Amino acid sequence: MKAILLSIGDELALGQTVDTNSAWIAARLASLGVSTVLHETVSDDQPLIAAAIRWASTRADLVIVSGGLGPTQDDLTRQALADAMEVDLVTDEAALRTLEAFFASRGYEMAQRNRVQATHPVGAAMIPNPHGTAPGIAASLHDARIFVVPGVPREMRAMVEDAVLPALAPALRTTAPGVILTTKINTFGLGESDVAQRLDDLMRRDQNPTVGTTVAQGMCSVRLRAEFPDPEDARARLEATAAAVEKRLHPLAFGRDDELLPAALLELLKREKQTLATAESCTGGLIGAMLTDIPGSSAAYLGGWVTYTNALKTQQLGVSAAAIDAHGAVSEPVARAMAQGARERSGADLALAVTGIAGPDGGTPEKPVGTVWLALASSTQTLARCARFTGDRASIRDRATKCALQMARLSLMNETLDHLRWLSLAPAKPATA
Amino acid sequence: MKAILLSIGDELALGQTVDTNSAWIAARLASLGVSTVLHETVSDDQPLIAAAIRWASTRADLVIVSGGLGPTQDDLTRQALADAMEVDLVTDEAALRTLEAFFASRGYEMAQRNRVQATHPVGAAMIPNPHGTAPGIAASLHDARIFVVPGVPREMRAMVEDAVLPALAPALRTTAPGVILTTKINTFGLGESDVAQRLDDLMRRDQNPTVGTTVAQGMCSVRLRAEFPDPEDARARLEATAAAVEKRLHPLAFGRDDELLPAALLELLKREKQTLATAESCTGGLIGAMLTDIPGSSAAYLGGWVTYTNALKTQQLGVSAAAIDAHGAVSEPVARAMAQGARERSGADLALAVTGIAGPDGGTPEKPVGTVWLALASSTQTLARCARFTGDRASIRDRATKCALQMARLSLMNETLDHLRWLSLAPAKPATA
Repeated sequence: MKAILLSIGDELALGQTVDTNSAWIAARLASLGVSTVLHETVSDDQPLIAAAIRWASTRADLVIVSGGLGPTQDDLTRQALADAMEVDLVTDEAALRTLEAFFASRGYEMAQRNRVQATHPVGAAMIPNPHGTAPGIAASLHDARIFVVPGVPREMRAMVEDAVLPALAPALRTTAPGVILTTKINTFGLGESDVAQRLDDLMRRDQNPTVGTTVAQGMCSVRLRAEFPDPEDARARLEATAAAVEKRLHPLAFGRDDELLPAALLELLKREKQTLATAESCTGGLIGAMLTDIPGSSAAYLGGWVTYTNALKTQQLGVSAAAIDAHGAVSEPVARAMAQGARERSGADLALAVTGIAGPDGGTPEKPVGTVWLALASSTQTLARCARFTGDRASIRDRATKCALQMARLSLMNETLDHLRWLSLAPAKPATA
Repeated sequence: MKAILLSIGDELALGQTVDTNSAWIAARLASLGVSTVLHETVSDDQPLIAAAIRWASTRADLVIVSGGLGPTQDDLTRQALADAMEVDLVTDEAALRTLEAFFASRGYEMAQRNRVQATHPVGAAMIPNPHGTAPGIAASLHDARIFVVPGVPREMRAMVEDAVLPALAPALRTTAPGVILTTKINTFGLGESDVAQRLDDLMRRDQNPTVGTTVAQGMCSVRLRAEFPDPEDARARLEATAAAVEKRLHPLAFGRDDELLPAALLELLKREKQTLATAESCTGGLIGAMLTDIPGSSAAYLGGWVTYTNALKTQQLGVSAAAIDAHGAVSEPVARAMAQGARERSGADLALAVTGIAGPDGGTPEKPVGTVWLALASSTQTLARCARFTGDRASIRDRATKCALQMARLSLMNETLDHLRWLSLAPAKPATA
């Protein structure tokens, strides 16, 4: 079964509101084996909505339309559906009584304009809405089943769960090709083409599970989608492919689905019974903020310093003023001294330090904007690397933060930092301070 | 000018990722008077993408397609555009050299599969991408202008700003009916209904400029939109209304358009020649991270401490262990001592401290999740307030951060913290430590 989703509303089309309904419906349908091939957001324009419904009904078995069921002059979905079906609207007496009762229970008289909410195209049926004033509509056109649901996310979700999916169940049992299961494997430290190269044979378009990649916020994620008649098969094949992907991307793959790098590092720290402190200059608290975003982070993350000025670096972390004078604040000796100072003063097992030039100003020919020194101090050694990040201030700080977290993770796994080579991390020359 | 936006990707169609690109592009186009009538999200299916491009080109003057320009086998937008235009793909030699140079500058050899990124349909033109490997494409079909941009939000935004909008400028100048000018006034510390009450007469639907409110991330912003035939009129009327709004929302309105609270506070600090340090517990570095997100923040922000554990609070900031034992880490005496300790140790003129329960665990009947103590130390006094924030961990931390920044701002303006009353900030009882 193929689905097309339509979202109706000027506020969505004009970008004042981000459409989250379609992603939710698509994910819900995918879990039942229904594949959403397209979503469309249409402005409050009756002929355009009607045209979109007609077009969708020739391309899909299922069309779910959300929004445009309110009582105002710019709620036009009902009328547009009637146009697409080439029929008139009729009033549903039961729906009208329900609507009047809804207002009466709140002590209001129903406004005249709300009456339109009790209408539906001839040949269609009403779907009750226990959570609001807008009932939904169920109809058919060109062999496609059409469901119209409210745009308010809470009402939409309840109606999809309580009415739309149950109505589809018999059809799903007879036509469903099976189930669709998806998962995502997250990596940091690999470019998209590196990932694609390592997964080349798995990414062929004729594979099942299908394997694709997405890049967001410096992380490359691998998306897997398995579609099989038997749920057990789907689960087993998805897991087998996921394990193969993780093996090929080891050790830079750090988690699945919504697991982010800070959570993966905190898990590892807890498992290894290690604690972590931070000393941040150009990231200004971002590493601490990302780590403490995770509930329970206090079990492994002790805290740290934001030593934005040179004075704080020397006074609070014991970085020698001579090293700053000789090498600059963005240098290997300073990064090392920051990490060692943070480790000693906090009593943590490990300490991460970051000092760099986030821009837009402050770059020099030898140390352009994006130059960041990272260091990790442990009881046995202090590792340091220099990275050159591209992009604007926000993305340089974001990548530096994630790079520091991945450095700590690799070190805890006894993996070499050379895995981060794509970040053009230069291995440290012998320290001069 | 009418626009249709297409977003390409299985992860979007299947609901694994929410499409935020379309809303951003639509809002950007709206600000220039271009009306987006429809967005469409299409899965990685070459015939379907081609059909969508063809259909859109007959319905709109402008079609912007984002995504599907990567080097992998599921990046099919280039080929689909060529199909829609009924032409072949050709290699752009200049783009190929740029691509090779991009990899060379990072010390790699370019993979064979990246070569496809230097191709475009015959008759189309390349749009350079200084931020990534995927150049964009500019083309025409059925009198519609078509722009294909990368799906990575940062690269997409840069390309729309730097290439797409400038290319549209001549057409916009000839078709614009007048001018539409907009601005936004940002507040923190007022609820949406408080703002609406203060602006009641300005918010009537028949006004020009129109005045509306939007709430996002705890801030209530007032949107103004002036539409006049004459640009000077529009500018003058917009400014007059903006000034009236700012006056009524003083002192909680802190900036216009994209100016955020950290930038407003930093400006004020610089003007008053004051420096700031931070001592963070539950916010874990978020205040420092937000401040240092602003270029040039080092002129006023010195740095600070993330004292997530009680041990770091006592060892690094001199908070007395007895006070923590007697009152708990989330208490007025601890918040005051953290602020005072940070001020003394950093040498800053002002220091902010935050200690609270961000949840989901750790709440008690007396101190439920969302309880946060905030303190501000200066040379003359230490102010402290207790807030009760609602929402999840991320929003409690976000509101606590913004509340701290607004506290510092009010104090620098010699305004009372009582303006923040809606946050249920309790005035401090006499300190017991």
